[in-house]
Order: sequence, then C-alpha cells, then structure tokens
Amino acid sequence: MTRRLRLGMVGGGQGAFIGAVHRIAARLDDRFELVAGALSSDPQRAQSSAAEAGIARSYTDWCEMARAEAARDDGIDAVAIVTPNHLHAPVATAFLEAGIHVICDKPLAISLAEGEALAALARSKQRLFALTHTYSGYPLVRHARELIEAGELGTVRIVQVEYAQDWLAEPIEATGANRQAVWRTDPSLAGPAGCLGDIGTHAYHLAAFVTGMTPSTLAAELHTFVPGRRIDDHVQAMLRYADGARGMLWASQVASGAENALRLRVYGTKANLAFDQEQPNDLWFTPLGGSAQRLTRARVKSAVAAHATRVPAGHPEGYLEAFAQLYKDAALQIEAIDNGLPVPVESRLLTTVDDGVAGLKFIDAVISSHGAGGTWVAV
Amino acid sequence: MTRRLRLGMVGGGQGAFIGAVHRIAARLDDRFELVAGALSSDPQRAQSSAAEAGIARSYTDWCEMARAEAARDDGIDAVAIVTPNHLHAPVATAFLEAGIHVICDKPLAISLAEGEALAALARSKQRLFALTHTYSGYPLVRHARELIEAGELGTVRIVQVEYAQDWLAEPIEATGANRQAVWRTDPSLAGPAGCLGDIGTHAYHLAAFVTGMTPSTLAAELHTFVPGRRIDDHVQAMLRYADGARGMLWASQVASGAENALRLRVYGTKANLAFDQEQPNDLWFTPLGGSAQRLTRARVKSAVAAHATRVPAGHPEGYLEAFAQLYKDAALQIEAIDNGLPVPVESRLLTTVDDGVAGLKFIDAVISSHGAGGTWVAV
Amino acid sequence: MTRRLRLGMVGGGQGAFIGAVHRIAARLDDRFELVAGALSSDPQRAQSSAAEAGIARSYTDWCEMARAEAARDDGIDAVAIVTPNHLHAPVATAFLEAGIHVICDKPLAISLAEGEALAALARSKQRLFALTHTYSGYPLVRHARELIEAGELGTVRIVQVEYAQDWLAEPIEATGANRQAVWRTDPSLAGPAGCLGDIGTHAYHLAAFVTGMTPSTLAAELHTFVPGRRIDDHVQAMLRYADGARGMLWASQVASGAENALRLRVYGTKANLAFDQEQPNDLWFTPLGGSAQRLTRARVKSAVAAHATRVPAGHPEGYLEAFAQLYKDAALQIEAIDNGLPVPVESRLLTTVDDGVAGLKFIDAVISSHGAGGTWVAV
Amino acid sequence: MTRRLRLGMVGGGQGAFIGAVHRIAARLDDRFELVAGALSSDPQRAQSSAAEAGIARSYTDWCEMARAEAARDDGIDAVAIVTPNHLHAPVATAFLEAGIHVICDKPLAISLAEGEALAALARSKQRLFALTHTYSGYPLVRHARELIEAGELGTVRIVQVEYAQDWLAEPIEATGANRQAVWRTDPSLAGPAGCLGDIGTHAYHLAAFVTGMTPSTLAAELHTFVPGRRIDDHVQAMLRYADGARGMLWASQVASGAENALRLRVYGTKANLAFDQEQPNDLWFTPLGGSAQRLTRARVKSAVAAHATRVPAGHPEGYLEAFAQLYKDAALQIEAIDNGLPVPVESRLLTTVDDGVAGLKFIDAVISSHGAGGTWVAV
Repeated sequence: MTRRLRLGMVGGGQGAFIGAVHRIAARLDDRFELVAGALSSDPQRAQSSAAEAGIARSYTDWCEMARAEAARDDGIDAVAIVTPNHLHAPVATAFLEAGIHVICDKPLAISLAEGEALAALARSKQRLFALTHTYSGYPLVRHARELIEAGELGTVRIVQVEYAQDWLAEPIEATGANRQAVWRTDPSLAGPAGCLGDIGTHAYHLAAFVTGMTPSTLAAELHTFVPGRRIDDHVQAMLRYADGARGMLWASQVASGAENALRLRVYGTKANLAFDQEQPNDLWFTPLGGSAQRLTRARVKSAVAAHATRVPAGHPEGYLEAFAQLYKDAALQIEAIDNGLPVPVESRLLTTVDDGVAGLKFIDAVISSHGAGGTWVAV
Repeated sequence: MTRRLRLGMVGGGQGAFIGAVHRIAARLDDRFELVAGALSSDPQRAQSSAAEAGIARSYTDWCEMARAEAARDDGIDAVAIVTPNHLHAPVATAFLEAGIHVICDKPLAISLAEGEALAALARSKQRLFALTHTYSGYPLVRHARELIEAGELGTVRIVQVEYAQDWLAEPIEATGANRQAVWRTDPSLAGPAGCLGDIGTHAYHLAAFVTGMTPSTLAAELHTFVPGRRIDDHVQAMLRYADGARGMLWASQVASGAENALRLRVYGTKANLAFDQEQPNDLWFTPLGGSAQRLTRARVKSAVAAHATRVPAGHPEGYLEAFAQLYKDAALQIEAIDNGLPVPVESRLLTTVDDGVAGLKFIDAVISSHGAGGTWVAV
Repeated sequence: MTRRLRLGMVGGGQGAFIGAVHRIAARLDDRFELVAGALSSDPQRAQSSAAEAGIARSYTDWCEMARAEAARDDGIDAVAIVTPNHLHAPVATAFLEAGIHVICDKPLAISLAEGEALAALARSKQRLFALTHTYSGYPLVRHARELIEAGELGTVRIVQVEYAQDWLAEPIEATGANRQAVWRTDPSLAGPAGCLGDIGTHAYHLAAFVTGMTPSTLAAELHTFVPGRRIDDHVQAMLRYADGARGMLWASQVASGAENALRLRVYGTKANLAFDQEQPNDLWFTPLGGSAQRLTRARVKSAVAAHATRVPAGHPEGYLEAFAQLYKDAALQIEAIDNGLPVPVESRLLTTVDDGVAGLKFIDAVISSHGAGGTWVAV
Repeated sequence: MTRRLRLGMVGGGQGAFIGAVHRIAARLDDRFELVAGALSSDPQRAQSSAAEAGIARSYTDWCEMARAEAARDDGIDAVAIVTPNHLHAPVATAFLEAGIHVICDKPLAISLAEGEALAALARSKQRLFALTHTYSGYPLVRHARELIEAGELGTVRIVQVEYAQDWLAEPIEATGANRQAVWRTDPSLAGPAGCLGDIGTHAYHLAAFVTGMTPSTLAAELHTFVPGRRIDDHVQAMLRYADGARGMLWASQVASGAENALRLRVYGTKANLAFDQEQPNDLWFTPLGGSAQRLTRARVKSAVAAHATRVPAGHPEGYLEAFAQLYKDAALQIEAIDNGLPVPVESRLLTTVDDGVAGLKFIDAVISSHGAGGTWVAV
C-alpha cells in the first residue's frame, strides 16, 4: 500500500460542522492520516479539540503551524482549511508559501482579487489547491458530466439550477446561539456575499461542472428577506451563454420547508438530465419525445462513476454510514465491557448473536414449512 | 480521545466486496484501527491483500491468529469475520475462546445448532458478538423502530416486508467468474438456504427490528427458478403473529430489474410507515385517514436518529462519500505531484482553485448586476 | 355519427357513489344516453333520484322495468347494474332474459354457481355481459398487458399484487351512518366475502388481466381485524402458477393510511413492470440489470393505449375533469346570471375575461422587457 | 334536475385537439348539451365535423350563427370558442353583441387592446366570459389557493413557476403536417407571442391564481432556439412583487424530454407548497423546518376541492376516464352484436362475465384454503 499522506487542519474546532466532515472524508478512503492542527485560535479550545480528534500536534497559530510543519521531516503533506471565509486566503497563502498542498473549503476567498492571487501562487509553487465543491464528488454528478461530454444530450440549450434551504428563514443570527448563522450573516467574516457566496456558488459550480459551460452574461437580483439581516439571503439570476444557451439560477436560504435542495436540470437538443442532491442515488435522463430513465450508479457502467464508487449495485450512497454505525455501536459496547461498565444506552440497537439465532430459526421454519408442502409451522 | 480499538479481520481478501465494506465502516468513525488479518487461506493472497489494506500483522491461519493475538499485549480487541457463511461459526468460536470480541457478517451460521452454540459461548465468555445486519444502522430505520415503540402506529396489524434483487436471474455461477455467485449458490459453502439465508434473513430481521415482533407461525414456499441451480433463489411466506397481526415476506434474487430493493411497510391501528433502503433518506409515515409525510433524518428530531447521524439536515446519507471522493482525488494528485508524475486521469474531476476563481467571478457579476438594478453584465 | 345507445340503470339512487360514476362514465364518450332507471326500491327516492339524474322513465321495480323496456320500440339497449352485490345475479338474469345487454358492477355475483349460471345465460342469449373491472380501462394497464403479450418481459416468473385501503380500519358500520360500510360488511348483502370480494377480486383480476395468467393453486388466509365485524377485512395469499411462476396477493381494508392503493408488479426473465393505480399516469418498466423507465401514455406509442386515450401527451389522466370543472362553474354562473341571481360562491374560482386581460398585460410586459434588452419594466 | 344549457361551438372541426376536449368537458357533468356549431369555415368539413359530434345545427359562418341562434327561442345559451388565437376576439365580440355567454379558450386575444375591449363588452352586456385556464380546475390547485388565502404559508416570499414541453424542439412546422405546430408558430394566427402566449400565460395565470398576487415589475428574455422559427419558443423572466416577494418564471417548448411539465412552487414565511400538473393527484406542503406532506384531494377535507371532485378518496383524477373506457368498449361491442358484426378488435379488452366467473373461482378457493387452515388448494 501507498503511504498514507499526512494531513493538517486549520479551523474545525469543537462544534464546527464542516471540520468534522473533512476529517471523516479524509479518513474514509484511508489515504490520509490527520497529524497536526490549529483547530482554534483559543489555546484551550485548540488543545481539547485536537485531543478529541486524535491529532498529535496541536497549534494555536496557523502561521507557526505552516512554518513548523514545513521544517519537519515528517511534516504534513497537505493542509485542510475549514475556517470562516475571510481566513481562507491568508491561511492558504501561508501554507502554499511553505510548500504545502492545500485542500480548502469553499468559497475560495472573499474577493476576486484574493482568489486570483491564490491561483497564481498555487501555480507558481506547483502545489495542489483543491477546493471542496462536495457535490462534484457524487458518482452520478460525474456521470452526468460524462453524458454531456459524450454528446448524449446534443447541444445544450437550457440550464436550470437552484439551491434552496430554509435554515435562515428567521433571524436566528440575532441571539448568537447559532455560531454558523452568526458568521455566515456577518459581512466582515463571510465576505460581501451571503446566500450568494454560501450556496449560490455551489449551484453555479454544479452547473458549470456538469455542462462544461459558463455563462457569458447575467442579470441578477439579490434580496434580503429577513429584517435586520446585513447580507443577502436570496439570489436569482438569468444567464446567457456564448453559444445561445439560456439559463436560470436561484438560491435561497429562506425557502421555508427546503432542507438542502440543490437541483440541476440541463436540456439539450436530444435529451435532458436532472439531479437532486437530496436523492443522490438517482440521475434522471429523458430523451426528446421519450421516456424518463432513472439512472443509478452501478447500472450506468460508467468509468467516472465507478472511480467514485465504494459499494455494489443497489447499495445506495449512505450504505457505508449505516454499516459504520454498527461498528460505532460495537466500539461503544466493547469499551464498556472491557471496562466493566454498563453498555451505553445509545448503542443498544446494535444487532447481535441473538438476532442471528432468530434468523436461523426463521430459516429453519421456512425450510420446514416448504418441506411439508407449504403448510403452517411454528417459528 | 478514547483509544482506538484494535481490530483484526478474517476473510475479505482482494476482490471480496464485504471485506472492503467492513474496513471502511470500521474506519469511518475513527473508533478502530485495523492491525491484523487472515484475509485469505492462500498465503500469497493473504500477504498481498494485507499489504493493500495497510494491515501490519498478516496471518494465513485464523486459528493461529486467534492464539497469537490473544497472547500479545497489543493484541486485537475484536475480530471482524467476513468469510463465506460456513466458516462463520468455527472462526467465531476460535476467537471467542481466545477472549476476543466478535463482529460477524450475517448470517450467523449455517445451522440453528451452530448458531445457538455461538450464542451460548458468547454469553459464557462475556464477549460482544455483533452481527452486521447493516440496514438497522440507518438513522431512519432506527427512528421507525422508535415510532412504533412510542405507540405512534397504535397496535401493529400488518407487516409487509420484501427484498428483491436480480443479480442471480441468470445462471451466472456456471462460469465460475463471479466468485460471490459461486459460493452463495453452493450449499456446502452457503449452507442449505440460498436467497433465504442471504437476503430473506435481512428482510426478516428488518421487520423484527422495526416492529419488535416476531411471527409465531409461518407458511412458506421456496423456489429455484434458474435451471441447474442447487439452492433456492426465491422465497415467499405468510406470517401470523401471536397477537393476531398478519404479515407477508418475499425475497428473490431473480426479480429482473431490482437492484437491492429491501422494503418494509408496517400498518397499525393508527398509522403506517414505509421504508425503502434504496432511498434511505426518506421514511414515510401516514396516519389513518390522513396525509403521507416524508420524514427525513434531521427533521424528525429523534435521539436514536441523531446518534446515527454525522451530517446536518438535507445533507443526505451519501454526502460523506461525495466529500471523501474529493480527498481521494486530492491524494492521487498530491502523490503524483510529489513524485513528479503526471496527474492520474481518473482524478481529473477534482475541483481546484480555478473553480474558486470562477465562483468569485460569478459573485462579482451578480453583485455588479444587482447594483445596477438587475441589468445584464458580463461574467 | 352513430346513434347513441339507450341505457337503463338499476340501483344508484341518491347518495350512492358507484351509480354516479357509471353515469359519468357512460356520458363521457357520448356513446350512451341514460333514458330509464329503477334507481331505488323506494318509490319516492326512485323518482327524485331519476329526476336529479335527468332520467325520463323511472321505475321502482326492476322486473317490471326489464319487461317494459323490452316491449318498447325505443327501449333500452343495455342496462347498468349498480345495486348491492346480492342483487347482481337476479337483476342481470331478468334483463338478459328480456334480451337486453348488461353492464354490471363487480363482483359478478355472490356465489360461483350464480356466476356460472349468468355466464351460461349471457352466452345462450348472445347478449353482452360487461363487468366493470375499472382498472383495466387505464391506458397504461392495457399497455402493460401488451408488453407482456409481446414478450417484453420474457417468461413471467413472479407476480406481486396488492390492494390496500383504510376506510374500514374502524367499526364504522356500527352506527349505520355510512351506507356503504353497512352493506359491504353484511354477508347477507355483500355475500360471504368482504374485503376479498370487494377489492381482493380487483387485485386478482388486475394481475390476470395484465399477465394473461391465472394461478393453478393457492394458499390463503382471511382475517377480520375489527372486533364485531361479521366479514373478512383482510386477505393474503400465496399463488402457484402452472408453469412454475409464483405470486403473492394481499388486500386489506384496515391498512391505516392507505387510500386506494392497488399496485401490481410483474417480473419476467427479461424485465419487470410496476403499476400503481393512484398514479395512473406512470407505468414503470425495468430490464434485467438495467435502468427503470417511466412510461407515459402518450410516449409509448401503443395502439391499445391510444384507443383508451382522449388527451395528448403530458395531459394526464384527470385533465378532463379539470377542464370539466370550468364548464361546471360556467353553467352555475350562466344559470345565476340568466335568472338574475347572485353568482354561486362555489363557482367563484372560474377563470374569466379578467384573467385573460391580466395574461395579455404579462405578454406585453415580457415583450417590452425583452425588446429593451431584458431590463426591468412594469407589468 | 335543472335544464341542461344549450351550447354552441366555433372552431374545433375534425382533427382539432382542443375542440374535442371542450366537448367532453361540457358533457362530463351533464350541464350542457351541444346543439349548434360552426366547426369549420369549410362548408364540407363543417358539416361532417358537426355530424361526427352529433350537433344538430351546423353553420359555416360564425357571424350568421350568432345572429340565428340569438333569434331562436331555443337558441344557444353559451358559445365555446376554440379557434386559432387571432379569431378569439372577433368571434367573442359577435356572440357577446348577440347577448350570448362566452366560454373561450386561452389566450383571450392577440393584443392587450383587443382583450380590454372584450372585457368591457362582456361587462356592459352582462354576459359571462369564461376563459378556460384549465389548470385552475384541478381540485388540488384550488385547495392550494385556499391554503394561501387561509394564511397557511404565512406571507408569500418566493414564487417559482415553470412550464416545459418538448413538442417544438425541432422545426416540425416546416412540413405543414402538424396543423397545431403550423398555426401556433405563425404570428399572423397565433399573435406576436409564441411559447409566451401559448404556455407562458398558463404558468403566469397559475401562479396568480394560487397566490392571489401579480408581479409589479419583471425583467424578461424571449428566445427562439429552432432555426427558421418566426416566433419565440422559450421565455424566462424574473419577477418582483409589490410587497417585496420575488419570483421566476420559465416556459419552453424546446425542453427535450418534457411532456407538459407545468409546475408551481410557492414559499411563504411559514411553509411552502408545490404542484406538478403531470401528477395532479398530489399537492406537497412543507412547513418551515418540518416534513413534507403529500396532500390528496379527498383527505384534505377542503370545500373547494370537494366542489371540484367527482370520485372518492384514492380514486385518482383519471379514474373516470378508465371507467368511461369500459362503457366505450361496451358500446362498440353492443353495436357489433346488434348488427351481427364481429366484435371490433380494439374493444377486445373489455372485461366480461367470464372475468366475473374467474373472480368467483378465486373467492371460492380463498375461502376453501382459509377454511382448511391456510393449506394449498386448487383455484
């Protein structure tokens, strides 16, 4: 096996959603080990967050971290940046300057100038700069892109993309209790774009990723629905593409009832396709004048989907989490048993040998009933 | 952080699907590290499989592995058994005897007697014996169970469970090319129950897990549709429960067009619920005379679902795999860059700093159009 | 145009659901005019029901009706029988004897002997005896049958059919308020089969209609869930077909949350198909190892579907009712206007010339905005 | 019963889709009888079309028809106008002037001036002018409007409406074979708006009907994708409402794969609702932070839905057509039998007494198996 790459992390202390997600994602395919971190600027919180995440080397200052890691023989190969938006550029700059690869949460930066400088620096340093537009990692999103590249839709005419959430439908940032809401609605931390930067860019990227096209001009409308909010919570735009295609983009964080409804539809001269990230196991493909087909990851026999696949046909995205849950519950119970403690109540749904015995009784009963011509027997 | 538990594995060599799944599942929540394995009885294959999986201690004989690991100070805490069915009982027995916790793929054993002996042994040794009925790990399956326990369905009257696949619709075991098909249709390796043992027991367990009820009697019919097959590929049964409830169970591996369609519906005096494991992000709940509700993991505010949850509302089961894909592609590119090699073509869909710059251009264009009253501007 | 056939009706007085449905169905394609009826055995109710339905000749005795109509030059061509089940056979017999074609609601009769006698009589009299198994009238049900006949599924292996309702989940017959519930749970009026006869036969017929196959043997279980009920409210059965196919049938009127969930799935050696009568605009077809296709009436280019089609592609089953609603509201308003009365409040949602003017303003605004390069204009 | 209203029709000769739809819609609720028509300007075609439709008084000139019908004691109460768009205004004017109520297909007219004149004339003549915006006739569309009126969504913030078709994705008007395509893409017959007038107005009306709101300003983009086409085949617009709500509208007749996809979503401060006219049996309602509910016509217990309802719970929109199909097939067979002709092959799927006998055999077998404890018996 190839050596696991050494990974560092900046941001992502206790209570931060996206830091935990990056750590799981880095671990899932066993290509990285997380060895260093500056998880918080608060020394106490940095230390306890690192301990909780099993990180050996904890820093409180990411500048120092970049220097120190670059100087070690066993220093990190790459850093994951999961801070609020306004720090993406300075942190990334420090690590790139230190010759360390960067994996950065989106958006890249809070201004175009910052972003272009980062792109130039990454190029000159010849370091990888990965930006985690998650939705491009779905097997069926990648397959959708392939279908268009292969001409299965003909010439693309219409692009409809949208991203609706409702978590900011009310002024939840006002109390300060929701840390995410606070920094994401504060232009000094999130940058000038609120909903636009947070999810509008995801929608924009998904459309570009799948179609391979970016609009040449647009007409747009930002709006802030929630009184007192200092940043946009809604954006809508019309798009014109160079070759005559047309499109619409809508993103909203006040769309009551919507969880995380990122949806893309693309219509070409020959067919359309549709993807909804809340149902990532399906990609819909419908030819001109024809019947809709529900494409699934395993049945499309796609090389790009296969590269992003870990489980067989019919085992949906999410099957691994279900499986992991059993391991998690087993770990909780093993620890309790080995320490002579009562089994934690939250692990009680773990299936055990008794379930297996029950299953074998069922098998016996079926075989017995069948052997008797399908008559009724006791289980 | 709690110490990671040390895990061993028996079975799961190169090309085996379920071994790889167990390894990812064990890693995902960072509670286990895989340190030992007897991945194949073929020494060469055992060695290369272990190397590929990054396993430090490779054995070819699981008896020896049980003895050796039990003797080490840093021996494994638990063993994952992912062999063909007929080895589950002997392997588990060896590790239990050695005082090692067991995590075993289903079915538990190939006979009821074997299974009951395992249950007794696990009890007497006071070791955990987890059986991986995966589908009970879904947050919404656990929530379904809670709903019934809490009386939200009233008294359960009707249980309808089914599991349909089509991968054995043709005699693919005949050529020997598909190893899974070969051993799963060979009674000497799979036990006397084919479809019944492989997926019928999953259906049976899911119904029992969610309802908390097992049937008292049943009438059943096994069938082998594919000519020449030596084991059942289809099972159907009617179920009677002690308190008057009724049910039906159907499992088939020749149901053309079905991928992995495990579905459960339970009807009580007050409501019904329905779950389809191919769409694990939805649980349907419909009251008597009322409207169907699509319950989602994050919105049900369920303690048991929360315990099995890693991502926020609207981020479906599968989101983590999409995220992990970006890390996997990043690892491929970092290795290539650091070794002066061309970037692997299969990693080319990784999103990078250039996507970030494109997104910032989009943000700029939207803000500029909006500032000009919603007029058209260049991107 | 061909002459409209003259239709009579027995049963279907005020408050009876199925009588009204037969009358609309007879009228929809303009092939029948309803000219005679014995809508109730109560003379007063027969008279007022006939007046309400616009029926010229009202009888109170169906024997007399059969005689009288047979004697007239302009007597009815056919009779629609929509009485409770126990009268189907005697009424049908009387009209067949009188040489009149019969269109009878299902079930045919309350005993097999009665039914076979009717079949023999219809044959000897050479009269049409249509039995209204409604669900066979859906374009996509007919297309499903064609697909199987044409071999698109290969050899049929598995038949799964079910019909779930919840309207009898509680003992609503006890109060007498629900006339349907009263007679359908009274063995002296409904016959010995309750749920079995009422909807189980629909499920059975649908499976037979689509597959062209009937089982050779079955094992079945009737059940009465609601205490005090005198007839079954639940039936489940396993089916064996002569050529080795297997099947299951389930029907229940106590399935909480189910409205009218008649569903059929058929799996052959090459593909499966699935139909849900609550979503009659879709037929799902999935090949072995392939992707599910959502077939719609207009796109399948099927002669049998076309024969059962009245509206173009994308105009779903139900479009005609929506259209009819506007005519119904228009009639209500015209009558009010012509009689100098206020417009009935329930017709107030009729769209009028003002909606048209609003639409033209919209068109003007769009053309104006577009003409100005897509700028904002007032509507 | 109230007297049936006498209806005339202008346009709708043989081969015209919408004329036939109007005739069925007028008949379905038995409130109109069609007695006069000017179905074509070609005398021969007018005559044969009228005969086929069973219309007693056939005219070739609609001016003369208006005069003649107004002069008769038994003249028409109302006229249905189903001509190409450019004739709507002149025909409607003639009948209004003659004191006859008007039911007109949409769009109202080909210019705003024409439309406003019609509105004024209808008002001054005190005649009904119904415009058939069909989609407002669906029970669940009416219920959606009620939900918003009742404040169930809170204050409306976002309106997303779209109407996608693909029947004009290619230049099918070029050959002349498709009459609809020819006149709908010819500005001299359809007016200056193509897709915009044909389906854009439906989308616009649906949004206005359900929300009770019309936008104050809009920015719009027309486009013609198909080379050589003389009229728009695509329209997209952003909408601003007076109270700060925002919206988007999209309509296209070149959206490959779309049949007749009219969809509306409305988001308020408290909830959203969604309707798709291709699945008219469902209305989706999702509260802020809550679970989606699938509302069905019968279960919502809505007065406005009940007024637009003809069948009970679970019998979907479309059930009546399925039922009517059996009557249609019965009519075909009765005519054949009575004329000594072979039964028409297209009616062969009619269910008959033999299906009834088969059903009774099934009932017998179930009762017999059940009586014997659920054992296998022959059918």
